[in-house]
Amino acid sequence: MKQSKKIAVLGAGSWGTALAMVLADNGHEVRLWGHNPNHIKEINETGINQKYLPDIALPKGIVGYSDLIAAMENVSTIILAVPTKAIREVLKKVQAIIADEVTIVHVSKGIEPDTHLRISEMILDEMPKSLLKDVVVLSGPSHAEEVSLRHPTTVTVSSENMDAAIEIQDLFMNHHFRVYTNPDIIGVEIGGALKNIIALAAGITDGLGYGDNAKAALITRGLAEIARLGTKMGANPLTFSGLTGIGDLIVTCTSVHSRNWRAGNMLGKGYKLDDVLSSMGMVVEGVRTTKAAYQLAKKFEVNMPITEALYHVLVNGENPKDAVDQLMARGKTNEMDDLVNILDERIFEE
Amino acid sequence: MKQSKKIAVLGAGSWGTALAMVLADNGHEVRLWGHNPNHIKEINETGINQKYLPDIALPKGIVGYSDLIAAMENVSTIILAVPTKAIREVLKKVQAIIADEVTIVHVSKGIEPDTHLRISEMILDEMPKSLLKDVVVLSGPSHAEEVSLRHPTTVTVSSENMDAAIEIQDLFMNHHFRVYTNPDIIGVEIGGALKNIIALAAGITDGLGYGDNAKAALITRGLAEIARLGTKMGANPLTFSGLTGIGDLIVTCTSVHSRNWRAGNMLGKGYKLDDVLSSMGMVVEGVRTTKAAYQLAKKFEVNMPITEALYHVLVNGENPKDAVDQLMARGKTNEMDDLVNILDERIFEE
Repeated sequence: MKQSKKIAVLGAGSWGTALAMVLADNGHEVRLWGHNPNHIKEINETGINQKYLPDIALPKGIVGYSDLIAAMENVSTIILAVPTKAIREVLKKVQAIIADEVTIVHVSKGIEPDTHLRISEMILDEMPKSLLKDVVVLSGPSHAEEVSLRHPTTVTVSSENMDAAIEIQDLFMNHHFRVYTNPDIIGVEIGGALKNIIALAAGITDGLGYGDNAKAALITRGLAEIARLGTKMGANPLTFSGLTGIGDLIVTCTSVHSRNWRAGNMLGKGYKLDDVLSSMGMVVEGVRTTKAAYQLAKKFEVNMPITEALYHVLVNGENPKDAVDQLMARGKTNEMDDLVNILDERIFEE
Repeated sequence: MKQSKKIAVLGAGSWGTALAMVLADNGHEVRLWGHNPNHIKEINETGINQKYLPDIALPKGIVGYSDLIAAMENVSTIILAVPTKAIREVLKKVQAIIADEVTIVHVSKGIEPDTHLRISEMILDEMPKSLLKDVVVLSGPSHAEEVSLRHPTTVTVSSENMDAAIEIQDLFMNHHFRVYTNPDIIGVEIGGALKNIIALAAGITDGLGYGDNAKAALITRGLAEIARLGTKMGANPLTFSGLTGIGDLIVTCTSVHSRNWRAGNMLGKGYKLDDVLSSMGMVVEGVRTTKAAYQLAKKFEVNMPITEALYHVLVNGENPKDAVDQLMARGKTNEMDDLVNILDERIFEE
């Protein structure tokens, strides 16, 4: 048995709860915090998070908290699993409570609108240096439902401080949850965020009835343009060939459970964006991310034809079929030119 | 309209016929050769290849031939679309007929058993130099049925002689069939062949009921080990991030139409290999490819844990669940170590 630690998981949604289960399986004492007292009461009374992971029995090591002060007592490691837009608000509460520095492991995927900050940068921006030991990201191809069923899953952890990443690897690693390290935090975070653009686009081609050939092309070429932008932003291009790049992209683009894919699918079938968003009743991260990536592509002077086409569909109301047809009609291309450009920049810069 | 050419497509299966349709759509005069006179007679009488592409009307530019001598008359470009094991036999007939050199475009995926030759090497080995102008490979994520429906599809062409590749790109390129060039013929052929190993393995995890997380991990880590072997064999590692690498892998691993995935799925459900193969009633290329790749991994001293695990399942009758569990239980790993090794070798060799 590994040494038991007290860990706070902030956010009692499906992903926070599934990760709490992994930690509890590994013998740790897990405080699962959620903002809704009734929801937490139900979790503690039934031993099940019925709202987010129906009918899954939680291991004994998990205790629900709706009081953040109590949850944070004697805790030096936080798993931050709240929605992206709630991160700054929750961190403000945390820093008002704690006296000693903590390591924050975030498990979110996105880019902050307007600032274009990655999530780890948002955390560094929000937390006082004296209260922040390390920031670690945990990301990869992982439906929470499958993790809660203890099906084999692999993820990647990354940090500016690799010792911190290895410590988090040790906390989570077990027989069904395999954790790799990767020193490239920029690439890990960018891959997780930008995959939602391609998931939206894949939903559109599926909605248009275009089939598997078109979707595979879109995923492949989409990954190439994500890698081009990510590399300009400081990522290692190889990271996009790993679990948080192509791995996460595959899970998101081939699963009907993906919210972004579903939104794209409705757009491909002819629904208007406003109707799609209101019928989903929740944030579609890929829409915000497409706008951010479009602006970043301009700023870094990167060619991103798929992102650009999607932007015109989302923002200017362009017909999705016309957008796909235009992508297919571009001039002849040497596949290697695009791929090699990524590497050349990297190699010659170092 | 492009200049019309006489082109022979050898092999009247689904892929040969779909490619013949693309060429005919582009205004070329296409001779579609098949060895079965009754099958060809039916194609010419009905204008449909009912056996392989049911209910799809063939364009007028396609004429079926069962006489190879007539099909080859005044033809300087051959599309070779016969099963891998028939390639040498058909080429022996071709060289007995032709007087002038031809360009051969092959569209097959595999490695020759025993010799471990790639398909283009088999063709070079079999054809007299005086009768062979160039060898070109056409490969990528492409279900024939979708191409015949003119759904958007992208493929890659490659050759030792890039002028020949560009010529073939021009022959096929049109609004729904987008053709990229890539100078790395080794990588294009290896990616197409070895993806069948991963498709088999993906079928196994699906058959075991392990879900999308496990499959995404398998595809990602599988691609990394294919790239490791391919690079040792002389391929450019970047090719494995392209259409003939990750693109083809996605189509093969996520489609229930893939023969290799179906075979793996039955193995995962507990059927014995012999029963699986006899119930499929046709060659499962991935089984032969796994054996070849296992031997190549030993020869080139490349670490291929997924291929090795699959080999033990296929050849030594190991339990598939034990094999997957062992893959999950390996020591801690830095994702980058594996990925970077591929590149280091490449960069320092050049």
